[in-house]
Amino acid sequence: MVDYTPPLRDIKFVLRHIVGIEDLVEYPGFEHVDLDTINGALDEAGRFMSEVIAPTNRDGDEIGSIWVDGNVVTPDSFKDAWQKYVETGWSAVTGPLEYGGHGFPDAVGFALSEMFVSANLAFSLNPMLTGSAITVIADHAGDELRAIYLEKLVTAEWTGTMVLTEPEAGSDVGALRTKAIPNDDGTYRINGSKIFITWGDHDLSDNIVHLVLARLPDAPPGTRGISLFLVPKMLVDDDGTIGGSNHIETVSIEHKLGIHGSPTCVLAYEDSVGYLIGEPNRGMRYMFKMMNQARREVGLEGLGIADRAYQQALAYAKERRQGRAVGAPKTEQSPIIEHPDVRRMLMTMKAYNESARGLLYDTAAAGERSHRHPDETGRATAAARVALLTPVAKAWCTDLGVSMASIGVQIHGGVGYVEETGAAQHLRDARITPIYEGTNGIQAIDLVMRKIPMDDGAVVRAYLEEMAELAEALPASGDPRFTTMGAALGDAVGRLSEATEWLLGTADANDRLAGATPYLEMFGTVAGGYYLARLALAALDEEPDPWYEAKIDTAAFYAHQLLPRAAGILPSVTAGASDLFSIPVAGLDSVR
Amino acid sequence: MVDYTPPLRDIKFVLRHIVGIEDLVEYPGFEHVDLDTINGALDEAGRFMSEVIAPTNRDGDEIGSIWVDGNVVTPDSFKDAWQKYVETGWSAVTGPLEYGGHGFPDAVGFALSEMFVSANLAFSLNPMLTGSAITVIADHAGDELRAIYLEKLVTAEWTGTMVLTEPEAGSDVGALRTKAIPNDDGTYRINGSKIFITWGDHDLSDNIVHLVLARLPDAPPGTRGISLFLVPKMLVDDDGTIGGSNHIETVSIEHKLGIHGSPTCVLAYEDSVGYLIGEPNRGMRYMFKMMNQARREVGLEGLGIADRAYQQALAYAKERRQGRAVGAPKTEQSPIIEHPDVRRMLMTMKAYNESARGLLYDTAAAGERSHRHPDETGRATAAARVALLTPVAKAWCTDLGVSMASIGVQIHGGVGYVEETGAAQHLRDARITPIYEGTNGIQAIDLVMRKIPMDDGAVVRAYLEEMAELAEALPASGDPRFTTMGAALGDAVGRLSEATEWLLGTADANDRLAGATPYLEMFGTVAGGYYLARLALAALDEEPDPWYEAKIDTAAFYAHQLLPRAAGILPSVTAGASDLFSIPVAGLDSVR
Repeated sequence: MVDYTPPLRDIKFVLRHIVGIEDLVEYPGFEHVDLDTINGALDEAGRFMSEVIAPTNRDGDEIGSIWVDGNVVTPDSFKDAWQKYVETGWSAVTGPLEYGGHGFPDAVGFALSEMFVSANLAFSLNPMLTGSAITVIADHAGDELRAIYLEKLVTAEWTGTMVLTEPEAGSDVGALRTKAIPNDDGTYRINGSKIFITWGDHDLSDNIVHLVLARLPDAPPGTRGISLFLVPKMLVDDDGTIGGSNHIETVSIEHKLGIHGSPTCVLAYEDSVGYLIGEPNRGMRYMFKMMNQARREVGLEGLGIADRAYQQALAYAKERRQGRAVGAPKTEQSPIIEHPDVRRMLMTMKAYNESARGLLYDTAAAGERSHRHPDETGRATAAARVALLTPVAKAWCTDLGVSMASIGVQIHGGVGYVEETGAAQHLRDARITPIYEGTNGIQAIDLVMRKIPMDDGAVVRAYLEEMAELAEALPASGDPRFTTMGAALGDAVGRLSEATEWLLGTADANDRLAGATPYLEMFGTVAGGYYLARLALAALDEEPDPWYEAKIDTAAFYAHQLLPRAAGILPSVTAGASDLFSIPVAGLDSVR
Repeated sequence: MVDYTPPLRDIKFVLRHIVGIEDLVEYPGFEHVDLDTINGALDEAGRFMSEVIAPTNRDGDEIGSIWVDGNVVTPDSFKDAWQKYVETGWSAVTGPLEYGGHGFPDAVGFALSEMFVSANLAFSLNPMLTGSAITVIADHAGDELRAIYLEKLVTAEWTGTMVLTEPEAGSDVGALRTKAIPNDDGTYRINGSKIFITWGDHDLSDNIVHLVLARLPDAPPGTRGISLFLVPKMLVDDDGTIGGSNHIETVSIEHKLGIHGSPTCVLAYEDSVGYLIGEPNRGMRYMFKMMNQARREVGLEGLGIADRAYQQALAYAKERRQGRAVGAPKTEQSPIIEHPDVRRMLMTMKAYNESARGLLYDTAAAGERSHRHPDETGRATAAARVALLTPVAKAWCTDLGVSMASIGVQIHGGVGYVEETGAAQHLRDARITPIYEGTNGIQAIDLVMRKIPMDDGAVVRAYLEEMAELAEALPASGDPRFTTMGAALGDAVGRLSEATEWLLGTADANDRLAGATPYLEMFGTVAGGYYLARLALAALDEEPDPWYEAKIDTAAFYAHQLLPRAAGILPSVTAGASDLFSIPVAGLDSVR
């Protein structure tokens, strides 16, 4: 059994100093929420995740959700945990008050999600997608659909899915072909095949609410001709009672590298009844709005797995004895944590994880402020910031999730390669996160082509300036660690500015696209240093305590050893496309 | 079915320009070998690997070698392929002439191994370990053992294993406890449990020859008290016929992340008869000699998997259409290889793979010259070089194997996460290589603590000087790509020298140990650029041809975009240990 201990002190520290939770709960709409209630809820949720959800993680991997006679069957431990999840009401924490939710800030929901992911990523995807469905329905569906479906989703009595992908329409959603034909009664007949539908079928709830992208007859080609439909697995009467089957066949599920507990379904819609959400041909717009939230949550998955991998590797490194550390007694083997190389791996995991937490929660907070901030300028500023940071939060943190889980395996040595240890599961599970919800390449393109040009570069420049100002302010703290930290951050921000200005000033689209992925890596690396420095500064303000000291030391380690890597990435941002295309396609073969 | 095409032109190019095969075949002992024979053998071997071995790779993963009633059962396709392997005589290419081998240079065997690994890593481990056993027996065993065992191993009629690890003795081999008690007839009774024994049991051959580390009674503690024994699975009469069981129980096999085709056995020796190899208490010395060869071969595994992953990703990127590349017709989706970000991933794989091939074959060639070079100075120089480069070849190339296989998954997008595609298998298979045969952390420690201090730093300085000289010479070629390449390489070598001198000049062992892993990464990155530049220069000398142009463009891409990362690593080499140990062990927990 591999335990999970929720990092509550870290989460609360970030909520306070990065999210600004004390300010957030004063916003209109949060009159019923205060900081004590939030902290209490987090403690309770942490206990639930570690005691009820985390123990199901190995079952999810080893037993998995399987496909039997056209239906998905989940492991028994999932069924028990799901029932407790519904009963305890954790699903409803951020849901709207009018539909049975508790109306807590999204930032609190984000913290819950982090712990959920760490406890069992595969399991957590079901509530996460349900949350996305709730957002879309609440924002765009008509009163009738909202009345029938929202409360059931908020309370997790039913679950929701996002149904986009088709075999020829993956990253290129606009190529999809599923059809929606109007019926006389205002509903639609949906016909088509969809793939990669996460939790597209399961036995945890009585109904599943699919949000399906499809084309109306005579819709324009591409993304401008896609509409969004609500298509329940089981038909529902107006009073909410479940009727007959809606003819959605689960054709098969994928045999995947990881997240075996999360069924990835091939679904066939055969004259299934669908209800139009919002206006015709605006489906992609609604989806995009939800997608930004989903992308932050996928970034959070990177952190969640990386933190669990860290906890497991740390526990092993304290216990496992091999070799003798410098200065250790000759007669005994040292715990491997005393070897500098193992300590480096652990510090690397700790520092990247905490930097990712800063970036992710700042992005989520900006997302929340973009619609909650009491004044319009505040909302607009936050909207720009969340737009800028979302692709970085998604891609950088999921790449880290994979590499940190891989370090976790390495710390275990040979036993890390043995599946029973559980370290390898984290690597397998993490590997999906750079792929789904927009591949990390697509995130980088979004960052470079759409996000940094926002407002003629003013949004990204403001963010860079904010980081540069912090770098300049750090030495004033008087602690020598902040002097070196400030120098390293200032240098890194300067180079990121150089990369940014090159991209903003380059006309050729292929040249900019060529630099997209290294730019995002550089951006994440620098931003990570920025958040750690902010947290370190906050720690310095507190009464001295080893926990706060560790925050400062972690930031210093990152600034000295990881942040300088940003400079090494710069040349690949500004190299342009010619290096990439100089060899013709035929010349890329190993053999000719 | 995922095809494998042996990269014969690349291999021959490297044999010529990095290994110096034309010079090597003039050495005494190779009178019966010439370049034409070698090239013909490589062509034939390539065909064998792609047609006979490569098609078994998915079976190895999906069916795997399993444990049934105390015995290992391999997939049927393995049995067929193994029989053909024995019949065609590929096992004997480098074996000594007097024991049925063909006495080809080890460099040729290395090329065969590369293709073998790409075709099926799990399968190739059995011959690879047999090769290690042959080396140890040929070098250290007495005439009688050589007479009975060597020919059977060279012809692959029997296979060999390396039996080192025990539960409490992994990286710390000196902690092992298996006992060897002398019998009256000069043999020994071996008793003990061993774990992680690759191909420790199987059904491909009639006998398995275990080379087992064990302790004699009253042996000194630690590595100085370990002796090496030959312990056959089945007892063998003096005339080579197989007798009864030697009481080696296969207790279980591991359920691993990858290389499912390679059974990883827990073995129990119960009064098994063993024959001492060489002198008592010198087992570790014999093993270390073989280990260097084994470590290069594990480095080669990184390349072999990375090249197969590249071939598969390239084929997919040419075929899969999504989105529209800049300038492509509006009406159709472009092959994803036309997107700059996908092209970057492919170029990154191609460039790293070819740089790794240069480093690996240079290391192997130095290994061969260290015992084959006609004069003593030549042997000594080569011995120093192979000692220096072996840890880099092992660790850098296996880390690349994992990261390149991961890029291979990413290029496939969602289908890369589906096991049937086969891309994920490469990642799972590759993940063992940074762990076994000395973890990559141990390689880095070896490099920093034992290798760069050789001859007071003269060996590493000579290598750095060789790289610096090439960097200076590059611009003279007149081609502008070589001017930028020379500048980038010169800068990178300068920084690697700085890191090297810091390590050589630092007294505190923990400070040096703290910089070991980043130093090795930096070393590999710079060396990679060096080998690509050498190959590019060789290509420039040839009649212009797209294949040679691609070599130059690949080196230029690496120099412009990957090599500069070395500079970003430097600060973490020279930071010392204080950053790593500033947080006490208890402070590393997420929660306190």
